[in-house]
Amino acid sequence: MTPTAPTSPDADEIAAHCGRLADRAVGASRALAGASGADRDRALLAIADALDAGRPAILDANAEDLAAAASAGLSDAMTDRLRLDDARLDGMAQAVRGIARQPDPVGTVVEGRTLPNGIALEKRRVPIGVVLIIYESRPNVTSDAAALCLKAGNAVILRGGKEALHSNRAIAACIAAGLAQSGLDTDAVQLVETTDRGAIGELLKMEGRIDLCIPRGGPGLIRTVVEQSRIPVLKHDAGNCHVYVDARCDPAMAEAICVNAKASRPGVCNAAETLLFHADAAEAGVLRRVCTALAGLGVEVRGDARVQAEFPAATTATADDWATEYLDLTVAVRVVDSLEQAAQHINHYSSRHTEAIITDDYAAAERFTRLIGSANVMINCSTRFADGGEYGLGAEIGISTDKLHARGPVGAADLTTTQWVARGSGQTRP
Amino acid sequence: MTPTAPTSPDADEIAAHCGRLADRAVGASRALAGASGADRDRALLAIADALDAGRPAILDANAEDLAAAASAGLSDAMTDRLRLDDARLDGMAQAVRGIARQPDPVGTVVEGRTLPNGIALEKRRVPIGVVLIIYESRPNVTSDAAALCLKAGNAVILRGGKEALHSNRAIAACIAAGLAQSGLDTDAVQLVETTDRGAIGELLKMEGRIDLCIPRGGPGLIRTVVEQSRIPVLKHDAGNCHVYVDARCDPAMAEAICVNAKASRPGVCNAAETLLFHADAAEAGVLRRVCTALAGLGVEVRGDARVQAEFPAATTATADDWATEYLDLTVAVRVVDSLEQAAQHINHYSSRHTEAIITDDYAAAERFTRLIGSANVMINCSTRFADGGEYGLGAEIGISTDKLHARGPVGAADLTTTQWVARGSGQTRP
Repeated sequence: MTPTAPTSPDADEIAAHCGRLADRAVGASRALAGASGADRDRALLAIADALDAGRPAILDANAEDLAAAASAGLSDAMTDRLRLDDARLDGMAQAVRGIARQPDPVGTVVEGRTLPNGIALEKRRVPIGVVLIIYESRPNVTSDAAALCLKAGNAVILRGGKEALHSNRAIAACIAAGLAQSGLDTDAVQLVETTDRGAIGELLKMEGRIDLCIPRGGPGLIRTVVEQSRIPVLKHDAGNCHVYVDARCDPAMAEAICVNAKASRPGVCNAAETLLFHADAAEAGVLRRVCTALAGLGVEVRGDARVQAEFPAATTATADDWATEYLDLTVAVRVVDSLEQAAQHINHYSSRHTEAIITDDYAAAERFTRLIGSANVMINCSTRFADGGEYGLGAEIGISTDKLHARGPVGAADLTTTQWVARGSGQTRP
Repeated sequence: MTPTAPTSPDADEIAAHCGRLADRAVGASRALAGASGADRDRALLAIADALDAGRPAILDANAEDLAAAASAGLSDAMTDRLRLDDARLDGMAQAVRGIARQPDPVGTVVEGRTLPNGIALEKRRVPIGVVLIIYESRPNVTSDAAALCLKAGNAVILRGGKEALHSNRAIAACIAAGLAQSGLDTDAVQLVETTDRGAIGELLKMEGRIDLCIPRGGPGLIRTVVEQSRIPVLKHDAGNCHVYVDARCDPAMAEAICVNAKASRPGVCNAAETLLFHADAAEAGVLRRVCTALAGLGVEVRGDARVQAEFPAATTATADDWATEYLDLTVAVRVVDSLEQAAQHINHYSSRHTEAIITDDYAAAERFTRLIGSANVMINCSTRFADGGEYGLGAEIGISTDKLHARGPVGAADLTTTQWVARGSGQTRP
C-alpha cells in the first residue's frame, strides 16, 4: 500500500515520506525473495487483468492530467507522450503479459564448478532488492517498469513526472490490486505521491535502502540524478549514433541501411544522426546516392565542404552538428580518409550507444568492431536493431550507455545481481 | 610516462595535473584496445621481470618510507602493511606472472544467437577503459592492481597512500619499464604524484574520462569516495560475516568450521565475527563445545544471557557487538529460536559479505541460501573460502559487497564491460 502523501509538504515531511517508502520497499523486497517465479508471473498476469478492468478509471485520470497540461501550455510532443487511449492501454497490458511469459532470470546459474576440495560452487542470479525509477511524462513507464522489476524479484519505487500524477496513481492502483489479488506484498510497487522535487534528492541519499536508481528522461534529469545520487545509477543517455560507409561497399545496401537508420523513426535513440563516408565511397557516388535518397524523404543534409562538393544541396555543418542528437529529419554528413579516421570521429563525438559500418571488406569490418568503444556495433545492418525486443531479450527498461553492470538493452536479467553459493561437507580452509 | 608532479601544488595545479593524467589514460586505453591478449601478457611478464630487476631500488625507496613512518609515529599495523622485503617482493612478481597466465577475459563471448532475420548477434567482453584505484598503505596494491587492469585491457590511474609514495614510485617505475620494453603505451599505468587530498576530489569528478573507481581501504576512505564520486564506484566494504549453527548439525563439524572461520586468520574480511546458535544446538551442548574451543585459542567470547547460561565465561554482548567487524580474536555469540530469526539477524547486521550455515537438514540449507541476501553463502564449509583464488577465479582486486556490476571476488573479467556486435548482410528494420 502506498503511504498517504503529506498534504502540505515541507522538507521534513518529504524526507519522512521518502523514508517510509524506502522502509516499506525493503520489507517488500525481503518478502518477494520468498516468492517463486510462478508467484511473480501470476501477479503480473493479475496486474494486466487489473489494468484492463481499470481502463475507465485510468482514462478519467488521464483526462484530468491532459486538461491540466492544456491549461499549463504543455508542448504538443509532451502532451502526446502523456496521452493514453485504448490502443496504448492495450499495449501496456500486453507488455505486462509479455514480461510474465519471459523466462525467470532469478535463480539462473551464471557459472559454477566443483572445487578441488569438493565444494560445489555456483554463482546464481538473485534480485537486486529495491529499485528506484525516476521518469518523466510517459505513464506507460509506470506499468512497464513495475512489471520488469517484479519479474526480477525487486521492489520498486516509482517517481513519475508531476504532469502524469493522476494517470500514474490510477495505474499504480491497478498494480496494487493485482498484487493484492495474487497475495504479494502491495508495498512491492510504490508511487512517490509528492511531486516536490526535494523528494528526488531525499531518495538519492538512501544508499543503504535503495540499491539502484534508473533515471528515464531528458539530459537535465539524468545530470541531476548522476550529480546527487549516492546510489548506483544505471542510465540511458543520449543516442548520437553513426553509420560509416566504408571504401568498399554495396551502394544499394549503403542506401537502404542509411535510410533505415536515419529516417524510419527519427525520434528514437537508435536512429542515426551522423553518416561518415570514406573518400573512395564519396568519389564513387555513394554519398550522392544516399543523400539524394534522404533528401527525397525530407531529410535536411548538413555537411562539410567535401560533402557539399558531392551533394551541393547540403547545408553547412558546424562542429556542433557532430555532437548533436537531432531526433529529427536532419543528418550530419562527413567525408573521412580512412576507417581509422571514422573511428576517431565516432569515439570522440558518439554517446557510445550504437554505430554501424557498411563494408564488403572482411578485415575492415572486424577492425571497426575493435576500434569502436560503443555499446552496440552493427556490421551491414541498421542501427535501429539495437533494441531488447530485436535482440530477443524481451522487454527492456532502456538502453544503457553506461559501462558498469549492464550495457545496451536492459532487460529483467540486468535487474538482478548474483550470489555465490558454496555447498560443502565440512571443509575448512588450510 | 607519469606527468611531472607540481612542486608547490595549489588547487588549480592539482586539477591540471589530474586532468593531464586522465587525458593520457584515455589515450592509452584506446591504444590498449588495439593490443592483443598476447601483447598484454608479454607486458605483464616484462613487468614481473622489471620488478625483480628493480628490487634494490624498491627496497631503498621502501626504507625511505619506513623511516618517515617511524618519525611520524605510524602504528605497528600500518608500518607492517607498508614494509616490503624479499618475500613480499617475490610475492608481487609472482602475482603479476600468475595474472599473465590467466585466460584473457577480453573477447570472451558471454552470450549470442542468430536472430530470425539472419543477423548473427554476440555480446562479448571488452575493456572498461580507464580505472582509478584509490588505496592506502600496502605498496603491493600498486603492482597487483596495475596487472589486473592491464590484463583486462584497461588503463589505470593509481592513487596510493602518501606514506607509501616512494615505494609506489619505485614500483611504478618498474611497471613503466616493463610496458616500454614490450612496446605498450607507458601511460597505461600512471601514479598520481601529488599526495594532496584534493586530487581525489578532482579525479572523482572526471566521469567523462574515468570509467570506474575502486577504493581499497578503511571505512573513511570508502565513505569519502562514495559521497564525492560521480564515477561509478565498485567497493569492498566491511566483512561482518556470520556462522549460523542450525538445530540439526554435526557438533564436530560445527566446531571445526566455527574455529576455522573465526580464528584461522582473524584479521581478514572473510573471517567470522558473529556466531548464531539455534536454541536446540545450544541446549545440545554445541554452543559450549564451540565456545570452549575458541576460548582455548585465546578468543574472547561475548554473548547475551542465553549464551552466558551455556558458557558462563562469556562477557556480556551489547547491540554494538552485532554490528562490529572485530578483525581480532573476539567473537559475538547469540542464541536464536529459528533459522528465520537467524536470517533476520544476519540481514539486519551483516555487511552482506559472507555467511555460513552448519546443518544436517537439507531443507534448512536451501532455505538459508534463499533468505540470506549476502554476496557469498556457505553451506557446511568455512566463510574463509570466500576468495577469488579459492573460487578458481585467479587474482582478485577485492571482494565486492556491492550489488551492481560485480559481487563477491572481483577478478580480471569483472574489470571488463560488454559490447554487442551484430553481423548482418544488409538487414534493415521493418
